[in-house]
Amino acid sequence: MDSDGSQGSYPERATIRDVARAAGVSIGTASKALNGNGRLKQETREKVVAAAQALGFRPNAMAQSLHRAKSMTVGILTTDSFGRFIFPIVEALEERLAEHGIAVFMCNATDDPVREKQHLDQLLGKRIDGLLVTARRMDTRPAIAVPGKSMPVIYVFSQTDDPDALCLLPDDQGGAVLGVEHLISLGRKRIAHISGPASFAAVVLRHQGYADALAKAGLPEIDGYYRNGEWSEAWGREAVAELFDGKAEIPDALFCGNDQIARGATDALRERGLRVPEDVAVVGFDNWDVMTLAARPPLSSVDMNLRELGRVAGERLIAMIAGERLRGVERLPCSLVVRQSSDPTSAKPSGGLQ
Amino acid sequence: MDSDGSQGSYPERATIRDVARAAGVSIGTASKALNGNGRLKQETREKVVAAAQALGFRPNAMAQSLHRAKSMTVGILTTDSFGRFIFPIVEALEERLAEHGIAVFMCNATDDPVREKQHLDQLLGKRIDGLLVTARRMDTRPAIAVPGKSMPVIYVFSQTDDPDALCLLPDDQGGAVLGVEHLISLGRKRIAHISGPASFAAVVLRHQGYADALAKAGLPEIDGYYRNGEWSEAWGREAVAELFDGKAEIPDALFCGNDQIARGATDALRERGLRVPEDVAVVGFDNWDVMTLAARPPLSSVDMNLRELGRVAGERLIAMIAGERLRGVERLPCSLVVRQSSDPTSAKPSGGLQ
Repeated sequence: MDSDGSQGSYPERATIRDVARAAGVSIGTASKALNGNGRLKQETREKVVAAAQALGFRPNAMAQSLHRAKSMTVGILTTDSFGRFIFPIVEALEERLAEHGIAVFMCNATDDPVREKQHLDQLLGKRIDGLLVTARRMDTRPAIAVPGKSMPVIYVFSQTDDPDALCLLPDDQGGAVLGVEHLISLGRKRIAHISGPASFAAVVLRHQGYADALAKAGLPEIDGYYRNGEWSEAWGREAVAELFDGKAEIPDALFCGNDQIARGATDALRERGLRVPEDVAVVGFDNWDVMTLAARPPLSSVDMNLRELGRVAGERLIAMIAGERLRGVERLPCSLVVRQSSDPTSAKPSGGLQ
Repeated sequence: MDSDGSQGSYPERATIRDVARAAGVSIGTASKALNGNGRLKQETREKVVAAAQALGFRPNAMAQSLHRAKSMTVGILTTDSFGRFIFPIVEALEERLAEHGIAVFMCNATDDPVREKQHLDQLLGKRIDGLLVTARRMDTRPAIAVPGKSMPVIYVFSQTDDPDALCLLPDDQGGAVLGVEHLISLGRKRIAHISGPASFAAVVLRHQGYADALAKAGLPEIDGYYRNGEWSEAWGREAVAELFDGKAEIPDALFCGNDQIARGATDALRERGLRVPEDVAVVGFDNWDVMTLAARPPLSSVDMNLRELGRVAGERLIAMIAGERLRGVERLPCSLVVRQSSDPTSAKPSGGLQ
């Protein structure tokens, strides 16, 4: 699938939820009114129909064929833990499914195959219509064994080796290209890449994007400028020491594999008297406000658009429940948020943190 | 209820989940085998019974009376968003309920009363056996209107004005006493308290704990040493400027309302040449590893034991589904984690961050 096209193909439009809200009734009532079934007061039915017309609501074929759904429930199974990457995904997914009247069971298996199996049994016992599997880490995981393979399963922010599965992931490589091309556009020529452990698929892909962007601009990859370590601020500080200590020529920009590394690097640069971004521009990855807004200066960062990932996962799951067959790896575009760590003319962020 | 007794009253013991795992069967199968119903191979039944005996499993009266449960599902409704305080609560709760074969629906209403009502309708339509209401912020919220009041509702990390409701909260005041008594035990006498917005109930309670601990030790509250601002690192830095700039006498310790404030304060102290903890000891609140371990030095902090809060919420919900009537505000104890920001002799934390 074409990752660039994914966002455009799901325009926002009025949902049954919007209609219910405008008419001041429950989703169930709105649905009955529009489908012409159930026992409702004529007045209620007319109010719902008027709201649907005013909002331009069109129940689509996909929603209509949701009668295939048995229980109007789906499960979300995390295989390690609900970390900060997972919550925006789950939240947006839950929102999207709720618009179709589908409720979400959440289960956490904490890296325990036995618990995972027990959870799956429990979900199957509840006759869920679909399953979404997610994980904090972006490594390939074994496929979930669903009896009979009849139930739709989507892997989101997680990848499996089953070629028949549908996996939704952020476009890590494209995101890295955005970050590095931004630094190149600012005239930077000696761009180092400080990243996380090379065992992460995302680390490999982000490095590939970094290399792609340099090559496209005709810039060489400088020896020793790609460094792997932990996903931590401490590693960001340490990597700066490695790249700058006693060096005749130093980087004029750092593209970092996450915001914690970027923040540590920014602190280390300031403490050695280098100005960010005048002497060294810095771009992070994740656009995690706890890091980007607290850093001095605030960090430019690549955003994985996790809420969009969750929303699209909801769409795909609904389509699959309605009978569509989807498979393969779909990568959704990242975006770049520019702040003062790369561009001193960017607007100051407003507001407090929590 | 006595908050000190809460942890002790729930000893860990073998659950139906443990038995199922040991016997290599699903929870449903284990349950059937032990209750003597359902169609199972004799061999399976014997394997389960043997595992139950080996583990000392005793199905308790509470679990037995769970036959009152209609659907073996409960709902979790967040009224704003699934923030970082909510994850550990929800995760531990889900774990606890899964042990009893109860599945969890999650719904997020994003501060929208209409969505909240729609979610509640949907959950009631699924015939949930109980509801847990939570929120990122610790403000009092209106009670959820459940028709007929027949369904158990618990508010966790959230408080309502309904005197018939059960609310589970961390003991903010007791947590603050722990943090301040620790600083006093280190010989500190000029302890300032930098906290969040005074409109938060937790801020008022933590300040009360600070005042209690000072009073108990016979130390005066020094004028201007209690300061309110945002929950941010920037406010921590600013508060240090306010407390130290041009002052003849300065604090020898800072008790901070959260870890972001503590981290900002620690950075500001270091940057003005003051040593932490030798010149000024610092204690934060939340024990959020992203902040406590990345700070230089690592931060001592009060831990709200959110997983324990989630686990106890699960217990209480099960008890209420089984027919117990519980009400009132129950506060669970916090604990203190000592690191180098207050005690230079404490062990260095190990391991990386993510």
